[in-house]
Amino acid sequence: MTETQSLPECLASGFAQAMATHSPLSAVLAEAAGFEALWLSGFEVSALYGLADVSLLTMSEHLALLRAISARCTIPIIADIDTGYGNAVNVDYAVRSYERAGAAAVVIEDKTFPKVTSLIDDGRQELLRREEFAGKIEAACSARQSEAFVIIARTEALIAGLGQAEALDRARAYCEAGADMVFVHSKQRTPDEIEAFIAAWDGRRPLVLAPTAYPEMTAERMRQSGKVGLAIWANHAIRSSVAAMRTTFERIRADGGLLGVEQDIASVNEIFALQNMDTVKAVEKRFLR
Amino acid sequence: MTETQSLPECLASGFAQAMATHSPLSAVLAEAAGFEALWLSGFEVSALYGLADVSLLTMSEHLALLRAISARCTIPIIADIDTGYGNAVNVDYAVRSYERAGAAAVVIEDKTFPKVTSLIDDGRQELLRREEFAGKIEAACSARQSEAFVIIARTEALIAGLGQAEALDRARAYCEAGADMVFVHSKQRTPDEIEAFIAAWDGRRPLVLAPTAYPEMTAERMRQSGKVGLAIWANHAIRSSVAAMRTTFERIRADGGLLGVEQDIASVNEIFALQNMDTVKAVEKRFLR
Amino acid sequence: MTETQSLPECLASGFAQAMATHSPLSAVLAEAAGFEALWLSGFEVSALYGLADVSLLTMSEHLALLRAISARCTIPIIADIDTGYGNAVNVDYAVRSYERAGAAAVVIEDKTFPKVTSLIDDGRQELLRREEFAGKIEAACSARQSEAFVIIARTEALIAGLGQAEALDRARAYCEAGADMVFVHSKQRTPDEIEAFIAAWDGRRPLVLAPTAYPEMTAERMRQSGKVGLAIWANHAIRSSVAAMRTTFERIRADGGLLGVEQDIASVNEIFALQNMDTVKAVEKRFLR
Amino acid sequence: MTETQSLPECLASGFAQAMATHSPLSAVLAEAAGFEALWLSGFEVSALYGLADVSLLTMSEHLALLRAISARCTIPIIADIDTGYGNAVNVDYAVRSYERAGAAAVVIEDKTFPKVTSLIDDGRQELLRREEFAGKIEAACSARQSEAFVIIARTEALIAGLGQAEALDRARAYCEAGADMVFVHSKQRTPDEIEAFIAAWDGRRPLVLAPTAYPEMTAERMRQSGKVGLAIWANHAIRSSVAAMRTTFERIRADGGLLGVEQDIASVNEIFALQNMDTVKAVEKRFLR
Repeated sequence: MTETQSLPECLASGFAQAMATHSPLSAVLAEAAGFEALWLSGFEVSALYGLADVSLLTMSEHLALLRAISARCTIPIIADIDTGYGNAVNVDYAVRSYERAGAAAVVIEDKTFPKVTSLIDDGRQELLRREEFAGKIEAACSARQSEAFVIIARTEALIAGLGQAEALDRARAYCEAGADMVFVHSKQRTPDEIEAFIAAWDGRRPLVLAPTAYPEMTAERMRQSGKVGLAIWANHAIRSSVAAMRTTFERIRADGGLLGVEQDIASVNEIFALQNMDTVKAVEKRFLR
Repeated sequence: MTETQSLPECLASGFAQAMATHSPLSAVLAEAAGFEALWLSGFEVSALYGLADVSLLTMSEHLALLRAISARCTIPIIADIDTGYGNAVNVDYAVRSYERAGAAAVVIEDKTFPKVTSLIDDGRQELLRREEFAGKIEAACSARQSEAFVIIARTEALIAGLGQAEALDRARAYCEAGADMVFVHSKQRTPDEIEAFIAAWDGRRPLVLAPTAYPEMTAERMRQSGKVGLAIWANHAIRSSVAAMRTTFERIRADGGLLGVEQDIASVNEIFALQNMDTVKAVEKRFLR
Repeated sequence: MTETQSLPECLASGFAQAMATHSPLSAVLAEAAGFEALWLSGFEVSALYGLADVSLLTMSEHLALLRAISARCTIPIIADIDTGYGNAVNVDYAVRSYERAGAAAVVIEDKTFPKVTSLIDDGRQELLRREEFAGKIEAACSARQSEAFVIIARTEALIAGLGQAEALDRARAYCEAGADMVFVHSKQRTPDEIEAFIAAWDGRRPLVLAPTAYPEMTAERMRQSGKVGLAIWANHAIRSSVAAMRTTFERIRADGGLLGVEQDIASVNEIFALQNMDTVKAVEKRFLR
Repeated sequence: MTETQSLPECLASGFAQAMATHSPLSAVLAEAAGFEALWLSGFEVSALYGLADVSLLTMSEHLALLRAISARCTIPIIADIDTGYGNAVNVDYAVRSYERAGAAAVVIEDKTFPKVTSLIDDGRQELLRREEFAGKIEAACSARQSEAFVIIARTEALIAGLGQAEALDRARAYCEAGADMVFVHSKQRTPDEIEAFIAAWDGRRPLVLAPTAYPEMTAERMRQSGKVGLAIWANHAIRSSVAAMRTTFERIRADGGLLGVEQDIASVNEIFALQNMDTVKAVEKRFLR
């Protein structure tokens, strides 16, 4: 069993990077690559299940993966709980459930339930009234048991086209409601919109960014802003897997055999290592009579 | 919802290829690549959970993935149920559960429970008495509801180093007990051991092979033998994913940003397509008022 | 494995009674007692989990119980899916999931998500716009695979205090949207309100009632109306269990022993029978070598 | 969220009583009745699922109930993990999983996997070699993270008809392997066999008893022995429920209505109280805007 680091410990230096995860396997690889935190992405897990990211996946399925990841990793896990599965009562229940299951933080977004994924071109992007969402953040803060459990408010104001003033107003209101960090989302193809937000932000709480749509934004630019505490590479685990499986499958299909792919995929022994076969053998050796 | 093809329909031409799967996502990609069947691999699913393939993963977790895959695919799913989770009573329960959950076939192997993965170098490889395993195959055949549900007996006699005669004896005994197909496993680095088995096999039932250890064996060689009905590429989905995630993670970590990986990973729009976002939008358009 | 009867077959005589269930055990007892159908009650399952009936329990947990019940019973299971877990897209997904898991019918109610239990004295009881709920019923009808899968629309108009006219208008609109039956709910302490509704109903589709609040309503009165097709005894399995466990626990605690309760509780042999131990022994005898 | 008491704290006075549980609901009732601990019984949970208690229920299903109970109770939960789901490797995994899920203790029995329920008249009752089971107890002790997590070894030597000497030898061996308590099981109809064991026991570790078969054994007799630390009333929650549901169902069926049962079952308001509806309303009032 592993002791998971808290997110405040992880962020002590002022800036950290989280990699997306959809499974214990991807999480172990992300931790091995040096990322300081994990992003248990609703988009990635929905994709793993072949489901659209529109509030179809249940909290049970998401929690089951969280528990399995938590049992295998020591870096903090930030759980993407979308809208919190309903209203403030659902948020209260969700926060208790995620904290108990091993999350270090939750991100709750100010869209209405059921949500539509933020990155879709022509999706509905309806936001909750600001007061109602502030109530959800207060409910989240009140429900956590440990001070070290982090509540991150995510505003979709820019995604919904409501402009910088609304985004800033919402960000401030959510901080007043108790949010420890503010996640601002944008689907502009350049960092301009987000950088304007950063420039205008008073810095009362650290920001969180996920630059999927604007990949020119680097960790270094975020860190140097002095206002961004966390960068999330939000969907690159599943996107890597898809490209690789597609290529491997097509090659095996075309070749009618395995020789062509052997060099490009992980060896069986590498998988054994990721499965902790050594630990199993040690337990067998010590206790199996 | 999709209607899954039966395995006998899939094998009507005499030979088919199954790709390993560990998720609906990998299954959708395998079906798109043209594979005729899916192999819901215990090794792959254990790896997804970061667990050794030694009977730790529960039937519940395996069934949950089976159901999710079954909801998204139309090609038959062959479930790797290891030893059947215990004795003949467990096999009876497992077969009913897997058939109900959407499997087209199960593979049961003649190792003792709990099992050790066949591909490990120095693992225990204890086999059940032949009579006891034949009883499990009879229990499996008796438990199925549909004649089209296929029971595949897998012998680990070669893996356990018991030789060709024992492997052939066991294969025949399992056919007499009702097995529809016989899966013979080998971890030799060349196809010789398996080809000797094929040559000696009387062909009373089609064989199943998974040439992970001996990749020189091609689909064409299997098909031309006239005795192999099914080739399983048994762990290449998860092995592709691991290699790709490792590369992507290291690159993002080294670069401190996304630009270097964008060209090598699937686009967000490709993921939307795999999530059936179009269907969701059509439902929204038609029914959301 | 058992073949579940369809709800239309069950209702062929014009009237049937469904007993609430929260587990395979309670379902087996209800079938043994002669009830023609089962009501997989959200209230009962929430209570089993110690959770308020306010959309906290996830669809995954409800489906898991449905599958387990479906594996043990032959009478049709009517699943209480509350509001359908969100909007029309969620309903589409839920109906596919419930049909696949073995339900014979779903009941969808016209409250907003997240719901509050109908029987609470001072709960919020907000209804969806009629058009929006009709869209959800259309989505449900479109999603089902079998014609025999029954869509039941439940209106909470009387619970919400909106009066008979609104209740009738909604009931008619939902039938036009495709509902096969209409469930009308009331929390009046006498049958008057419901009987007024029945009298005014044009009978285009059979009604469904759950007379928890007005226990003077009998099966005979419903049957004789000629308009009620299904009576649901909606929460009497869990309410029986609670009273019995409370009594037994207090007695054992007071006595410091078991002798005082032995006569009032089921014997261990009765439990074995409900667990189908005979079947297990038969499988053992036949296949265990 | 509730802080669960440890079992050592609970046993500080030298003797405690645990009530069987199969759900959060039954657990809340047991805690309210004053029991000091809960017994998450494999027999009860199997019965809830309508399954024979022969290693069919998976660890996943058992853990899911454990987590749900742990979220609602403050008294320690003793998990009945049967044989530990396989060998020492499975025990290692199970102990980590149960501790993480909120158990205060596990009971592991010295039967072979898959097990047969101890109380059946003519069941196979095969025991593991003593050394092999001692290895499993060592694995369990090595896997726990907290010193306060209790490992209870259960010997079925008397159930298997191996006599007092074997039972005592095994009990001593398991203590030497690290077991904190020893559970001795008997299916004799009188306490004689167990009392002979108690008399012969050297008291190096406290004993655990479940006097289902010999109900004349009282808490007081156990306490006064000075050697029994824990009494488990092992299946009385589910047996109460079954008797009550059977009676209620038959009465409603016979009456064709509810009036006859209303006085004998819990009111809807009692269920609301068990569901913590007051807490939900308080959250709504405070945070819903």
